[in-house]
Amino acid sequence: MKLGLNLSFATKRWLNPEKLAEMCKRDFGVRYIQFTWDLIDPWWPEAQRDALAQRYQKAFREQGLEITATFGGLAAYTYAQLLAPTKEEKEISYAFFKRAIDMTAAMGVDVIGTPIGGMTHEDAVDPARRNELYHIALDYLRKLAEYGREKGIKEIQIEATPLATEFPHSPKESLHLMKDLDGTTAIPVKLLIDWGHALYKPLLKEEADMELWLKTCAPYIGAIHIQQTDGMLDRHWDFTKEGIVTPDLIKKATKNAGAENIIQYLEVVTAFEEFDDVVYENMKKSMEFLKDVFKQ
Amino acid sequence: MKLGLNLSFATKRWLNPEKLAEMCKRDFGVRYIQFTWDLIDPWWPEAQRDALAQRYQKAFREQGLEITATFGGLAAYTYAQLLAPTKEEKEISYAFFKRAIDMTAAMGVDVIGTPIGGMTHEDAVDPARRNELYHIALDYLRKLAEYGREKGIKEIQIEATPLATEFPHSPKESLHLMKDLDGTTAIPVKLLIDWGHALYKPLLKEEADMELWLKTCAPYIGAIHIQQTDGMLDRHWDFTKEGIVTPDLIKKATKNAGAENIIQYLEVVTAFEEFDDVVYENMKKSMEFLKDVFKQ
Repeated sequence: MKLGLNLSFATKRWLNPEKLAEMCKRDFGVRYIQFTWDLIDPWWPEAQRDALAQRYQKAFREQGLEITATFGGLAAYTYAQLLAPTKEEKEISYAFFKRAIDMTAAMGVDVIGTPIGGMTHEDAVDPARRNELYHIALDYLRKLAEYGREKGIKEIQIEATPLATEFPHSPKESLHLMKDLDGTTAIPVKLLIDWGHALYKPLLKEEADMELWLKTCAPYIGAIHIQQTDGMLDRHWDFTKEGIVTPDLIKKATKNAGAENIIQYLEVVTAFEEFDDVVYENMKKSMEFLKDVFKQ
Repeated sequence: MKLGLNLSFATKRWLNPEKLAEMCKRDFGVRYIQFTWDLIDPWWPEAQRDALAQRYQKAFREQGLEITATFGGLAAYTYAQLLAPTKEEKEISYAFFKRAIDMTAAMGVDVIGTPIGGMTHEDAVDPARRNELYHIALDYLRKLAEYGREKGIKEIQIEATPLATEFPHSPKESLHLMKDLDGTTAIPVKLLIDWGHALYKPLLKEEADMELWLKTCAPYIGAIHIQQTDGMLDRHWDFTKEGIVTPDLIKKATKNAGAENIIQYLEVVTAFEEFDDVVYENMKKSMEFLKDVFKQ
């Protein structure tokens, strides 16, 4: 089993690339790093943005760590992106994701991922409009795959989210999205499945079952986010908290779905006002805990 | 006492300006609206950004509602902004806030506000570096006030936050910031005080006292954010939840500080995965509750 680390925990706390890379190596002992756009906004002016992105890449490489992907974070997730109500907003989102591809390519990273976006309430409750927006999103994903290929990107990962107002949010719908895209994109488009999204009971009910998700979507899973949760909200807790993501469940679901070779990135989202020292200690303990679980 | 509404609750849920304005008027019965940058990112391309901003302005005006200010939201708060570690990132933040001023001016709104930003851990624990960053931030605020004046902005509001890694985060520090800026800016720079930030006990301890905040900073308070909270985290709950922000406390602190004429905007931040219908019902009940409290 393969453990990785999303840099979400470092948002507005550890913004010195060299010190962050050293922390990830020395204190967390992780190898695979998923870089979050919450550290660098793809909207930032290219020259300064890419110089900082390259400084992160250099810092992590010098520690012997591998940035295997870049991924959308909280800031990007705040906006409706490709499922926005107007053509103009969707075009803005398309421009944003192209900038994220540019930044990823500038870092020398060849995998990029994100949730697709969210629908305004009026669209989300209108079946015809949902269907229309779904197909528009497919077209944008194909255009992004083409743009990604031109820039040297090898794979795009779409994150399933725990919201009925977003695509995809269930095992079947995730599979359906993958089949609709399969063979129609310039580079592979795969899924990222998050433990906390997959186990969100208020929406998914009996489908809140990670093994079901992993088995249903098996050929299309590019990566996994791991977090602790109680299944009642999308918690993104670290593993010092009590929750339903147990060592037994992690090992069983991963093994039964044959997902041992898929990287599972710990993605912790803390309250901004949590003290840095507390976040650091809990991250350290969580990585120790998970490294023990992931030992084969 | 004056009640207002920050549009944070609508983020990625109600993105049709006309329908949102109608909801604010018909269902929430509020007059003063604080527009959040979580509905429109100041980074978006100017022409499309400003056209959408103007559509919001028109929709709210047609309902007889008044957009009294625009304010930074979750996405802007994700980044270190003016307290970032490098000169380059601070310059990017300065460009971002100038774009926010442009957008605000394009909407025909003349008050803008935001938190200043946050320090990376290494800077936050270094007193000399904190002092240096504080003075750099003062300079940027003066430049932003000058830029705002050119664009027709009348006031900038700086939000106090519940983080020791940010400026300002205590009553005394807020007053100090105001005194340092007083008389040195092209347009007034004032404070926005948030109930949930002011009552955050883990950081503030005996200073977690709204009346103390309001009295200490009295001449400089431009606006207030109101939220329900338990004082243990910056909850941004609606008022259907049980908490420590009681009708008696709201009335007493406001009256004793002479803050009856300062607008208090309800700022609710929900989990993204909360159902739209639940958010709507709780907002409706919260506004009914607060309108009753604010009746004089």
